[in-house]
Amino acid sequence: MNKPEIITRRVDSLRQWMRQHDLAAYIFPSTDPHAGEYVPDHWKAREWISGFNGSAGTAVVTLTRAALWTDSRYWLAADEQLAATPFEVVRCSRNVATAEELVRWIAAEPADEAAPGKEHRNVGIDGWCVTQSYAASLQYATAAANMLLITDLEPTEELWEDRPALPESPIEIQPLAFAGETAQSKIDRIREAVNEQGANAIIITQLDEIAWTLNLRGTDVHCTPVFVSWLMLLPDDAVLFADPKKITPEVADYLAGFHVRTAPYGAIVTTLQQSRELRGLRFLADPDTTNNAIYELLSMIEPLESPALFPDNFPNALNINLNAAAAMPPSVIDAECPVARMKTQKNETEIVGFHRAMRRDGVAMVKFLRWLEEQMQARQSGVGESPDLEPVTEVGVDRKLTALRAEQPGFREISFDTIAGYGPHGAIVHYEATPETDVPLQPRGLLLLDSGAQYNCGTTDITRTIALGPLTDEERRDYTLVLKGHIRLATAVFPDGTSGTQLDVLARYAMWQDHKNYGHGTGHGVGSYLSVHEGPHQFRMNWMPAPLHAGMTITIEPGIYIAGSHGCRTENTMLIVEDSDSNGQNSPAANGQGSTWLRLEPLTLCPIDTTPIVRELMAPDEIAYLNTYHARVRESLLPLLDDPADRDWLINHTAPI
Amino acid sequence: MNKPEIITRRVDSLRQWMRQHDLAAYIFPSTDPHAGEYVPDHWKAREWISGFNGSAGTAVVTLTRAALWTDSRYWLAADEQLAATPFEVVRCSRNVATAEELVRWIAAEPADEAAPGKEHRNVGIDGWCVTQSYAASLQYATAAANMLLITDLEPTEELWEDRPALPESPIEIQPLAFAGETAQSKIDRIREAVNEQGANAIIITQLDEIAWTLNLRGTDVHCTPVFVSWLMLLPDDAVLFADPKKITPEVADYLAGFHVRTAPYGAIVTTLQQSRELRGLRFLADPDTTNNAIYELLSMIEPLESPALFPDNFPNALNINLNAAAAMPPSVIDAECPVARMKTQKNETEIVGFHRAMRRDGVAMVKFLRWLEEQMQARQSGVGESPDLEPVTEVGVDRKLTALRAEQPGFREISFDTIAGYGPHGAIVHYEATPETDVPLQPRGLLLLDSGAQYNCGTTDITRTIALGPLTDEERRDYTLVLKGHIRLATAVFPDGTSGTQLDVLARYAMWQDHKNYGHGTGHGVGSYLSVHEGPHQFRMNWMPAPLHAGMTITIEPGIYIAGSHGCRTENTMLIVEDSDSNGQNSPAANGQGSTWLRLEPLTLCPIDTTPIVRELMAPDEIAYLNTYHARVRESLLPLLDDPADRDWLINHTAPI
Repeated sequence: MNKPEIITRRVDSLRQWMRQHDLAAYIFPSTDPHAGEYVPDHWKAREWISGFNGSAGTAVVTLTRAALWTDSRYWLAADEQLAATPFEVVRCSRNVATAEELVRWIAAEPADEAAPGKEHRNVGIDGWCVTQSYAASLQYATAAANMLLITDLEPTEELWEDRPALPESPIEIQPLAFAGETAQSKIDRIREAVNEQGANAIIITQLDEIAWTLNLRGTDVHCTPVFVSWLMLLPDDAVLFADPKKITPEVADYLAGFHVRTAPYGAIVTTLQQSRELRGLRFLADPDTTNNAIYELLSMIEPLESPALFPDNFPNALNINLNAAAAMPPSVIDAECPVARMKTQKNETEIVGFHRAMRRDGVAMVKFLRWLEEQMQARQSGVGESPDLEPVTEVGVDRKLTALRAEQPGFREISFDTIAGYGPHGAIVHYEATPETDVPLQPRGLLLLDSGAQYNCGTTDITRTIALGPLTDEERRDYTLVLKGHIRLATAVFPDGTSGTQLDVLARYAMWQDHKNYGHGTGHGVGSYLSVHEGPHQFRMNWMPAPLHAGMTITIEPGIYIAGSHGCRTENTMLIVEDSDSNGQNSPAANGQGSTWLRLEPLTLCPIDTTPIVRELMAPDEIAYLNTYHARVRESLLPLLDDPADRDWLINHTAPI
Repeated sequence: MNKPEIITRRVDSLRQWMRQHDLAAYIFPSTDPHAGEYVPDHWKAREWISGFNGSAGTAVVTLTRAALWTDSRYWLAADEQLAATPFEVVRCSRNVATAEELVRWIAAEPADEAAPGKEHRNVGIDGWCVTQSYAASLQYATAAANMLLITDLEPTEELWEDRPALPESPIEIQPLAFAGETAQSKIDRIREAVNEQGANAIIITQLDEIAWTLNLRGTDVHCTPVFVSWLMLLPDDAVLFADPKKITPEVADYLAGFHVRTAPYGAIVTTLQQSRELRGLRFLADPDTTNNAIYELLSMIEPLESPALFPDNFPNALNINLNAAAAMPPSVIDAECPVARMKTQKNETEIVGFHRAMRRDGVAMVKFLRWLEEQMQARQSGVGESPDLEPVTEVGVDRKLTALRAEQPGFREISFDTIAGYGPHGAIVHYEATPETDVPLQPRGLLLLDSGAQYNCGTTDITRTIALGPLTDEERRDYTLVLKGHIRLATAVFPDGTSGTQLDVLARYAMWQDHKNYGHGTGHGVGSYLSVHEGPHQFRMNWMPAPLHAGMTITIEPGIYIAGSHGCRTENTMLIVEDSDSNGQNSPAANGQGSTWLRLEPLTLCPIDTTPIVRELMAPDEIAYLNTYHARVRESLLPLLDDPADRDWLINHTAPI
């Protein structure tokens, strides 16, 4: 059977199951129970039913139709992968299809085909694999269309043959020498923050938050050193729910040291259902990250006593719900999980670790860049190709760079799939070279290279755009405009508490003068040997209210992408630090936004290619910044390079311009 | 009786009235029924009860206590004005005290003093003088504190002796030659926009919106050419509610020409209560600008038929209100009034009018600046004061400038109270010189002068900071940083639909490098012979999502304020225009934010003082911008100046630097 036939058979068996359960439609989102960026294979149900393997997409199957929503990054791939299957591709303008879009599509099916003889249609989704917020929006949208959302029927357990098991690899302890704060101290701080929100318990569901809290790491998720689990913190108890096979005696001892019990991963359900023990507790839960199933279980925990309510006949001029306004706190308090923000502010030890990781990464990058330059120079002599030389391709670049990183001490894995895009591929924002798309590099034009690694002491994320030889005027101009944007934002001084949205335009001002722009954010937080994308703060045009504080990491990565031609992006990971004034003082802000001034300090250590720069477009302070940065890169990396050729290359490529 | 005694007597009689009506507290906000910036004397109830005359403040009186909340601009004034009255001053960090603050303060009064023998306390506020949003937040806050908000009891009608009447001055027609679009066309557009929101009727309550819609102007409100009224637009009917004395036969004829009936101002209540005619209509209302009384009257309009609801036993897994999700539209649709945004986008005729107004204003400013310079030069010769010369004071500056503006054709009045702040007074952001605070200008230091006028063809708003003689290094540096910020924002090119928050930092980047900042917004819209502050778009750090489009006006006015020393601000009013690229094309944006590129063009025509500029702090493109601007000012104003001395002055003060 070929792939489209397999998919068609799966859809047929799903429809049979749907008829048995009186479902008119079933929705497969691309999320998992832990709302993480990368989904373990075990939960790739959307890929199982549709065959589509992009990172974002929603599949919906009704009794007669099937469709997959995905955004522009994946339109071509979806068309290819879904050809000859029952699925049509719906082109979606956002990462995730809205509840209204999905319901409108489901409603378009004639009622006699969708739910013959029924008064309303039932629409299914797995409550474990959808956030409470998204489930609520689906509930509203289905109700408004005379449908009912069913969240406790799940087809894959019955139908998915050879479903990948959950990983069983052991959990490791992240030493205090890298973590910088004990798990006990973190748990104390979390409990305090939970109490500040009027709650007294929490279930931490995001895997990087659990790993950070307990100073543990795992290997369950692609590019992210986390392990599948739940962490429940009660006022006098703490339980880590994880597969017992993952918990070595050493880890069990370690956890017992600060009174964290362990229980099997699946035991979370019975624990929450036996709500007698939990009666009267108020759980903090973030509807944007907590899945619907957990949220519902928490909602059903009973209060200790009935709340004192207003009498029904209490006079009420404005027609509002007085009881809702005055009611006792329920068992669930909706609030942002405090761990997200705690984790973003790195402690001294973590900062030292970041610097160490960046030096290692810089050494690997320098060796790689020298190698690439030599490869290109060897091909530059002739006018056409050099047939006697093994071609260097995008996939080869990825392989070579990863191999050089792997030589570095403390290297664990890459922190995301390398983007190596040559020429027109550089204009595809989320390009990942595959054997099918791979092209050999020529000694001309631009290579956009966005990559990073997980070291035991820190995570890296760096983009360099590299001139492989002669460039067009437009390539040089775009490269320079991107660099100007990078530097303008990198030199910003700003009051503590400023948000990333309030600063974002600094990276765009220069290119906007040329009517050029980019459709992605300008920067994101980076974890400490954790997720390479770490919220809630971001540099982004869309409103991101999360305030910036000293100790946070954040990338700066503006870009210009000319479809069919080239792409440029220059990215450093930065550390937010306090900025002393000329007297060494950090004076209070005038506008009440904060009492201290902040600035950005580059963590990333790697030369920025100066050959494409159009010097007359650069302001004097921009050139000064670049020269200062390069002096710092040289000073940091030179002592770590043994090969004289590498040393010469570095000295050459960090010379002032 | 002195003033404190009068206030004490008023509070006593209020308390007697409160006891009669079983009220434990009464709240006096500083707003009126039309949520405008300037309140007609008739509605200054907060000033009547407390004696405090600042533009922002909330008074609360209980049976034993009284307090007034105001923000930092007015702390000193409130202390002075409320001394020896029953009112304590509560220092508030925002313009308006939050509902929670007020209720917490009311709740702090012991129950046996506040409402002896009662189960709960009644708290009064006049529903006509508070927005629906604020009333709703008060309702929640009071309910949570076991209090009840009463919005239909109002003490001033009984207690306020010599209350100023509502103005009776006649309404004038704004000619089409200035308005550029007929009232009929505007009404058609408003009806269409109302329909798009799922509504079919509206009551326009904001006075500038009524004036804009009908192309009428009045003289009822300080600095703003509007008249007290309501405008009701039904699908087949339109009614202007205004005092019949204000409606001349000419205006009545004019209104009849496009089928707008008139009714007395107060008839709005009976019209809305006789809801039979209005039955089934759905009124669009913005809770942030519609007062609570009108909103409540609209809410009580009955629907034509009962909505089709879900049955109570409909299965409902997520515990949400299915009926709320699926219900038929009610009689009130909460949405932003569409007039606000329509009014911000000026038509060709209005833009021509703005240019004409700016030339007139520029001529007055040039004559004033030349006069001021000569005055200061005459005083500069000696080291100390020149006793034989009449002193030039802040109040004198205001008077002289207004007189010069009044000589211009089409001048009607000033558009806001002039801010003329010399030296330390320049650091007080909302300073208004009074006989008590007035100081003579010396031939040294900085004068901050923020002023504007209403001309029949447009409204102006300009700030210049003027060196009256020698300056300190800090004054020169601050002046230059402000100018750099002004120019950086003024040169921005940006995609259509960008919000003011996304651009604001461009005005702050330079001064932030010096750890300097300002606590106000960077810019606001300006009306066309209407309010000088026109929303919803703004340049501001706080999130203001309103998108910027071509045809909008907006000011750029960054500042630096050094308490006790000096203030600098440089403000031009700008017009947002489309920006063609080098090929004369306006290419599509890459990020979907809009299909065209925009830039800012200065409307204001007046030299910017170049003498304080620290040239080495200025970037070459900043100097080029200033020189281009000055060439434009010279070219525009020179033909309009008859006096050779004025011409020489202008040529001199617009010379390239």
